[in-house]
Amino acid sequence: MRRIKLTVAYDGTAYHGWQVQPNGVTIEGELNKALSSLFGEKIEVIGASRTDSGVHALGNIAVFDTETRMPADKIAYALNQRLPEDIRIRKSEEAAPDFHPRKCESVKTYEYRIYHDKFPLPTRRLYTHYSYADFDILAMKEAAAYLTGEHDFQSFCASGSQAETTVRTVYAAEVFEEGKEIVIRISGGGFLYNMVRIIAGTLMAVGQGVYPPEHMREIIEAKDRSAAGPTAPAKGLTLISYEFP
Amino acid sequence: MRRIKLTVAYDGTAYHGWQVQPNGVTIEGELNKALSSLFGEKIEVIGASRTDSGVHALGNIAVFDTETRMPADKIAYALNQRLPEDIRIRKSEEAAPDFHPRKCESVKTYEYRIYHDKFPLPTRRLYTHYSYADFDILAMKEAAAYLTGEHDFQSFCASGSQAETTVRTVYAAEVFEEGKEIVIRISGGGFLYNMVRIIAGTLMAVGQGVYPPEHMREIIEAKDRSAAGPTAPAKGLTLISYEFP
Repeated sequence: MRRIKLTVAYDGTAYHGWQVQPNGVTIEGELNKALSSLFGEKIEVIGASRTDSGVHALGNIAVFDTETRMPADKIAYALNQRLPEDIRIRKSEEAAPDFHPRKCESVKTYEYRIYHDKFPLPTRRLYTHYSYADFDILAMKEAAAYLTGEHDFQSFCASGSQAETTVRTVYAAEVFEEGKEIVIRISGGGFLYNMVRIIAGTLMAVGQGVYPPEHMREIIEAKDRSAAGPTAPAKGLTLISYEFP
Repeated sequence: MRRIKLTVAYDGTAYHGWQVQPNGVTIEGELNKALSSLFGEKIEVIGASRTDSGVHALGNIAVFDTETRMPADKIAYALNQRLPEDIRIRKSEEAAPDFHPRKCESVKTYEYRIYHDKFPLPTRRLYTHYSYADFDILAMKEAAAYLTGEHDFQSFCASGSQAETTVRTVYAAEVFEEGKEIVIRISGGGFLYNMVRIIAGTLMAVGQGVYPPEHMREIIEAKDRSAAGPTAPAKGLTLISYEFP
C-alpha cells in the first residue's frame, strides 16, 4: 500500500462543507467517489481541514491509501477528469505511510475577504462578504496585531466545540486592501472551530468603531465567546494553504 | 414620463445572455420584471450592450421610461431589493427623454481574462478561460497594437452578422498579466458581433506561436473571418464600462 497526498482547491459554494454527511454533497464525498472509481478500490481520504459549508480552499490537503502503481504526479490529472469543475487537484505526491495531516505540525493560512463599496459586485458575491459600512483599516491592522503569539483563544471559539485546549499560536495576522476588498490574512499552527470567522467579525467591529483596537486584549483575556464580535459569514473565507514545515 | 438610466453589473453564468427570449432567463427579462413589479407599470428597458450567454458585466447600461416620482438615485436601491443577487444596479440617474444608449456616441471597454497555470482554479473558473498553454505575452502585446485605429474588422466578425458596415474604431488594446491571469483590455467606439472574443482567440494563437504578431496586419487585410483565430469562450469576457463622452 502507498499513501498519496493531494493538494485540493475548491469553490465551496455548492457543497455542504468538507466532511462526508448523510444528506448533502461534500468535498470529501466527491473525492472518495472519484478515487474509488479511478482505482476500482474503496478509498476514503483523510482531510487536513474540515472546512464548513460555503468556505473555499486553494490548498487543502487530503491523503489516501491505494494499491495502484500509477506514478504519484499523474494521479492529479486522472482525478481531475473525474471530479466536478469546482474541485481541482493541484498536486499529487507520494507521502510516508504513516503521514496523517491532522497529527503533524502544520502552518495553516486563511484569508477572509470583505467587499466594501456602495453596492455589492455580482462577480465577487460568492467569494467575499459584502459590507456597505466604512472601515477604519488602520484600526483593524492595530487590532489584528494583538492576535499574534500563543494565546488562549476561547473567546474566538464557537460554543459547543470539543477542543481539548483552546490555546493556539497565531504566527501572523495582517489586514490590507486590494481594490475594494479588505483582506484579513492569518497564519497559525492551528485554529479552533469558527476561529477565523469570529476574528473576522471582531476585526470588522473594530473597523466600524464598535470598540477601539486595544479592546482586543480584553476580548482575549475574557476567555468568553460573548466578549468577541459576531461570526462572519462563511463565503468570505478561503483556506489559502496548509503546509507541513 | 421620465427616462431613467441604469448602470448594471451582473454575473452572466446563470443567464441566457442579456436579451429577452422565449426560453431561458435573461438579464433584460429580470430587469423588466423587477421594474414592472416595483412601479406597477409595464416597463421594458432598452439595453446598451446585448451581451451573450455567460458574458459578465461591471457596467452595462439600460434605460427605461416611467411615471414614478421616486428620486432617480433611490431607484437603484429599490430595484436591488427585487433583483437576484447576481444582478446589481450600481447607479440610477435621470436621462434626457430621447437618450438611446445604442444611438449615441459611446466608448465600450471589455476585458478578456485567461487563467494560465498547471491546473484551473475553481474560484476563478466562471470568470476566466483556462489554458494550460504557455503564452508569449510580449508577442500578444505587439499583436494587439495592430488593432488600434479605424479598420475594417470583418475578419473579426462572426459570420451571419447583420452589421451594415464592419468598419470600427479601436481606441486602445492592451495585454497585461495579473498574477496567473492574462488580461486583454480593449476599448472602442463599437464592436461587431463576437469581435472581442475573436480578437481574444486570435491573440491567444499569437501567444502560443501559431503565427507571429505582424501577421495581425494580414488578418485584418484579409477581411475574412476564416483568417482570424477561434472565438474564445464567453465566460472569460466582461463588459467593464459603457460610457457616453
